[in-house]
Amino acid sequence: MLTKKDIQNQIIQAVETVKKTNPMAGSITNSVTINLVANAQLAVGGSAAMVYLPDEGEFLAKAGGATYINVGTLLPIYEETLPHTAKVLHETGKPWVLDPVAVGIGSLRTKLLKQFKVYKPTIIRANASEVMALAGLWELDGGTSTSNVRGVDSTDSVSSAKAAAVALAKWTGGAVAVSGETDLITDGSVIVYSYGGSHFMEKITGAGCSLGGVIAVYATAASPFIAALTGTSVYNLAAARAEKKVEGPGSFQVQFLDELYKATAEEIANNPFEIEEV
Amino acid sequence: MLTKKDIQNQIIQAVETVKKTNPMAGSITNSVTINLVANAQLAVGGSAAMVYLPDEGEFLAKAGGATYINVGTLLPIYEETLPHTAKVLHETGKPWVLDPVAVGIGSLRTKLLKQFKVYKPTIIRANASEVMALAGLWELDGGTSTSNVRGVDSTDSVSSAKAAAVALAKWTGGAVAVSGETDLITDGSVIVYSYGGSHFMEKITGAGCSLGGVIAVYATAASPFIAALTGTSVYNLAAARAEKKVEGPGSFQVQFLDELYKATAEEIANNPFEIEEV
Amino acid sequence: MLTKKDIQNQIIQAVETVKKTNPMAGSITNSVTINLVANAQLAVGGSAAMVYLPDEGEFLAKAGGATYINVGTLLPIYEETLPHTAKVLHETGKPWVLDPVAVGIGSLRTKLLKQFKVYKPTIIRANASEVMALAGLWELDGGTSTSNVRGVDSTDSVSSAKAAAVALAKWTGGAVAVSGETDLITDGSVIVYSYGGSHFMEKITGAGCSLGGVIAVYATAASPFIAALTGTSVYNLAAARAEKKVEGPGSFQVQFLDELYKATAEEIANNPFEIEEV
Repeated sequence: MLTKKDIQNQIIQAVETVKKTNPMAGSITNSVTINLVANAQLAVGGSAAMVYLPDEGEFLAKAGGATYINVGTLLPIYEETLPHTAKVLHETGKPWVLDPVAVGIGSLRTKLLKQFKVYKPTIIRANASEVMALAGLWELDGGTSTSNVRGVDSTDSVSSAKAAAVALAKWTGGAVAVSGETDLITDGSVIVYSYGGSHFMEKITGAGCSLGGVIAVYATAASPFIAALTGTSVYNLAAARAEKKVEGPGSFQVQFLDELYKATAEEIANNPFEIEEV
Repeated sequence: MLTKKDIQNQIIQAVETVKKTNPMAGSITNSVTINLVANAQLAVGGSAAMVYLPDEGEFLAKAGGATYINVGTLLPIYEETLPHTAKVLHETGKPWVLDPVAVGIGSLRTKLLKQFKVYKPTIIRANASEVMALAGLWELDGGTSTSNVRGVDSTDSVSSAKAAAVALAKWTGGAVAVSGETDLITDGSVIVYSYGGSHFMEKITGAGCSLGGVIAVYATAASPFIAALTGTSVYNLAAARAEKKVEGPGSFQVQFLDELYKATAEEIANNPFEIEEV
Repeated sequence: MLTKKDIQNQIIQAVETVKKTNPMAGSITNSVTINLVANAQLAVGGSAAMVYLPDEGEFLAKAGGATYINVGTLLPIYEETLPHTAKVLHETGKPWVLDPVAVGIGSLRTKLLKQFKVYKPTIIRANASEVMALAGLWELDGGTSTSNVRGVDSTDSVSSAKAAAVALAKWTGGAVAVSGETDLITDGSVIVYSYGGSHFMEKITGAGCSLGGVIAVYATAASPFIAALTGTSVYNLAAARAEKKVEGPGSFQVQFLDELYKATAEEIANNPFEIEEV
């Protein structure tokens, strides 16, 4: 089993590799937070590109070091684009991050998320309600058959999604990051709890989406588990630092991007976390 | 007739209910300002969710306390999504806010806005030119047969839209908010003029759109008239406060979101307004 | 040949006309940076409006003083909208700015960019890799047959795109602006190098897109060459000023918009540039 020190060293390596190589992680993501996703990816040292069409999704899947797929504001063309892109990612063995936003809303969303089961997203990033609903949709342990998703918000606690997160990670062979007050990251055999963050994260739209995009950037340079933890750690660190300097959500988002940019590899690795065996 | 004190008490109640219950108001809105709509809704204490597809529009209409529909950057699928969602809202009696952005541009926009007449949007939020053009499209008093809309901007004064605003409110049985230097809100029998704001509101995109989204949030907790006035009041207050602290439109938008977040119920209720009987 | 003083006088006139007349420049542009495009256009004194549908593109083309077309996040409907709008712009002699983002990715993008050759975009704004790839697609001098475009980033230097930029400007009879560390603007017979900017411009998404939108605003009030140079100059000036006041990309974008707003005509005209005959 990885020691805390091993994990910290791998985080440092992931952060430094990204800052040095400016890796591209393409996205197919919702229009509400697409700008923040790109800016967060750039702030940590990555490069961003977003598309909607099937052959462009395939191009980015192949050209990028990793890809981020977020099912937020679905367009009709996504019925073709998303399964096609996910299939290419799966077949080429490229890492990809799935954000199953608002699982349970609408027939296309349900259909797409069901299809993704066989393409095994390398990393799943979601809130507790979404993690449990996705596990339910995929008929895995810990899943809920009825979604508690309320629009894009979670109505469940992170700890209640533990079994579902472990089951999803075991199925994909990758990692799952459950976002909440304390974040939970697992590869199916180890669980890490990451601390920090800010109450302002719920007062800006796209904190979760942009974390998914940043995790995709780190997935170009680290294992799924380390990528998920590195992204979560820099978010918890940057949010906690930003909160101290601002009075409201407008300036929080601005300061948060600055802190993402300024955080060093060592600082990110030292953001508090605890390890637990499954 | 409502006294000023009655109105202020209802504003206080609307603001406090929203801060306490974090109500969800879904949106179908344009991609230019969609992020600001969501962030403004969150800043005042609401919750946001945006979709494009017909069955997802129906889901949000039923799940949310109110819905915001903005015809800004129309997509082909909106031909199905918007009338279907408006119909569901009308049939379920759920409040919804219509922003008839750029009425007069394009055949689909005209068709959709005509269809909305029978679904009676609970609140209409627009600039003076749009209010008059919509009244014209619906063949109501005060309407203009030819639109003076120039892109998304108004070329008419708020006072020139008074008759059209009253006629629209009488038709829908709800409220109309006309945005301009002084804002006019009416339920068809009473008119309120709301003061404040900032010249910077015209130097950022989405001041009007995000106000529509915020009014939808308040419509989950108040009458259409009070919701429209509460949203307009917090906008006028926050904009006036933000203007004093900034040097340009970039920092204005940031500070404006902070001020939306910080404004208390009493402060919002005390933002200057005047009452006039129709 | 224009002297430096002539050019500066024309820049001053362009900036002042825009600030005085608030001209509308419509856009069909990508959803990643659409908000920044609009806010930048507003900050320099213009007015913005964005659409997706064919007849709305035609409306904006005719109603606006100039139009901005950016092929970033293509939607299926763009197969109709973009050639139709470009044709209307060409036939009516209205200036338009093309941003051939990510040329080389996907079949629709290639098809559209090929079609634009006959509609002769008045101004082309792109990075070096895109300029060379577009010249290649149009079978002009200096073009590359294989695109070095990596997602949305350039992998080539501005100077390497000089021949392609000149060839494109000669073909269109308009101007080409190549963005990079030093920017190159040419009308096919004269080249201007514009200095300034900030390393943070690569750490925010949309610096190039929003420059295209701002150049469209100036194209309502100046020749293609002066419009391209004026937009590039105010960007270089505002970015250099903003960089000195901030610590990261979040606050940089905010400050950059403020500096766009505050820059005077004289300051913009005095931003350093050098002239070279082709």
